[in-house]
Amino acid sequence: MLTGHQTWQFEQKPVITSTGTVGGPFEANGQLAQDFDLLHDDLWLGQDSYEKAQKVLLEEAITRSLEKAQLQNGDIQFMFAGDLINQITPSSFAGRTLAIPYFGLFGACSTSMEGLALAAFIVNGGGAHHIVAAASSHNAATEKQFRYPTEYGGQKPPTAQWTVTAAGAAVVAKQGNGPQITSATIGKVIDMGLSDPFNMGGAMAPAAVDTIIAHFRDRGLPADYYDLVATGDLGRIGRSIALEMLELKGLPLKSDVFQDCGLMIYRDGQPVQAGASGAGCSAAVTYGHLLNRMKRGEIKRMLIVATGALLSPLSYQQQETIPCIAHAVSIEAGGEQG
Amino acid sequence: MLTGHQTWQFEQKPVITSTGTVGGPFEANGQLAQDFDLLHDDLWLGQDSYEKAQKVLLEEAITRSLEKAQLQNGDIQFMFAGDLINQITPSSFAGRTLAIPYFGLFGACSTSMEGLALAAFIVNGGGAHHIVAAASSHNAATEKQFRYPTEYGGQKPPTAQWTVTAAGAAVVAKQGNGPQITSATIGKVIDMGLSDPFNMGGAMAPAAVDTIIAHFRDRGLPADYYDLVATGDLGRIGRSIALEMLELKGLPLKSDVFQDCGLMIYRDGQPVQAGASGAGCSAAVTYGHLLNRMKRGEIKRMLIVATGALLSPLSYQQQETIPCIAHAVSIEAGGEQG
Repeated sequence: MLTGHQTWQFEQKPVITSTGTVGGPFEANGQLAQDFDLLHDDLWLGQDSYEKAQKVLLEEAITRSLEKAQLQNGDIQFMFAGDLINQITPSSFAGRTLAIPYFGLFGACSTSMEGLALAAFIVNGGGAHHIVAAASSHNAATEKQFRYPTEYGGQKPPTAQWTVTAAGAAVVAKQGNGPQITSATIGKVIDMGLSDPFNMGGAMAPAAVDTIIAHFRDRGLPADYYDLVATGDLGRIGRSIALEMLELKGLPLKSDVFQDCGLMIYRDGQPVQAGASGAGCSAAVTYGHLLNRMKRGEIKRMLIVATGALLSPLSYQQQETIPCIAHAVSIEAGGEQG
Repeated sequence: MLTGHQTWQFEQKPVITSTGTVGGPFEANGQLAQDFDLLHDDLWLGQDSYEKAQKVLLEEAITRSLEKAQLQNGDIQFMFAGDLINQITPSSFAGRTLAIPYFGLFGACSTSMEGLALAAFIVNGGGAHHIVAAASSHNAATEKQFRYPTEYGGQKPPTAQWTVTAAGAAVVAKQGNGPQITSATIGKVIDMGLSDPFNMGGAMAPAAVDTIIAHFRDRGLPADYYDLVATGDLGRIGRSIALEMLELKGLPLKSDVFQDCGLMIYRDGQPVQAGASGAGCSAAVTYGHLLNRMKRGEIKRMLIVATGALLSPLSYQQQETIPCIAHAVSIEAGGEQG
């Protein structure tokens, strides 16, 4: 099952039997609106705080994923979830609502694939019939915690990214129809010495490259194996750095194959600077848009590389550089597509 | 491998081949000083912030555990770690230093057993040769984040607990000499409506009880199966609540069998109110003191029930109650003891 240094291959090919994706008003105006199960026109979701709104996003995404699979909460053995908020309270409070045995994760924006990798390993190994893996982020909850109070209206450089308001959840099962999870590569913490929190994509690019190279090396794959290699949220700057680094390191991925979830979710006109970010970005784009494309036969094999910047506002104030990480999970079209 | 609703049994019985435990000055004056590998007389550990000091605690605990097993960082496939600091920066920065593929966890003080359960599952399922699972806490880093600036000298009620300055790490391997990990039960988030952050033990007791009952139910064990059932950090108040609840729910554990790591680590004279807490508490006590007792033959079977309060300073300000969780891992004396 361990292949090479840091990769798992899943012989039982666990299946993503259903997913749930929920977004906010900015996402409703975006490029992928039709790929969400539910879109809110109110950033508060009727709650009295943005953190509670984020909790509701996550609860709704998980509940949708269960409904579609015709499962009750009690049918799910375990829930993996995490987010960027201090002490990941949106995830833990959703865990309270859902009453599913709960693993809290912290991987910043890499959380989606950290959870999916663990869920796939456990289902593959007979440790559960069904697991739900989810991640969420909320623009306003994140802005006020990591940057400025939103009322301050602080300006941002063009390298900055926009945190999505979204949650994505996937139900992983041993059997069923749907795309199969075939392998996962767990990343190391990589820090190339960048310290600008308004250029996360640049900081995260080397972590994405390290994990992608480890993945192809551990599995012994040719560079053209995947139809799509999608990073989580490198944005425009980070993506072009990563593409160049991959070529320099001997893994030339084609420009149309190497895409970024953070560059898919919004329209060109939306003021998101270098692109989208947030733990909910790769989760919602993968579990909505990309799996829909796979269902339509447009993608047969894809590698999702969720990227996370593991800084805190305090570590930045303490003049630390930004440690980054990326986890990769490969998803392939299931039996019904051949 | 899944047994009952939320429990794993590990047929391969993964082994804890070595551990590392590191503590601070307050722990050096405590009851279990002789069970630590390394004790510091400086709360700063020579660093310029308490968060960096906590990172060093964790790095030292992991490095000690590897040295004792005569392993290099490159021999370890994965590292599971987490802590209470915003965005778990001490763990992630330690991940950067150690360069081991890294899973960040957030389970508050339940992190130690969340990580050990996942490590055991993965080693049992052939997903790694060696995994290190670790948790840490630092009194001053935690106080300033969750409560008052330490300089303020805020008084505390007798129900409050003292966050330990300690880290504990365990190397889990498929084979070798040492205690065996036989099963794990993953807890649900339980919230009985308590909201006093100075009475965490009381808030966490129902979560501990829920997980312990699930564990005995899922495995079909008699109440006297374990020589020791040790909760993470319920303290004096929480322990007595839990003991009573267990009896009411039909699982009468003997008072000398049902112990709490938070009541073991300090001497009676130390001003710790209701006992110790912190993610490093159950990690350091289990991987030091309790495994030493097992090595001496004083304990043959034990269940460690790490308990976590999943609140944040913000969720408290937003008048939320305290969601809690507990994860249980059973450890039994290995082959050499019979």
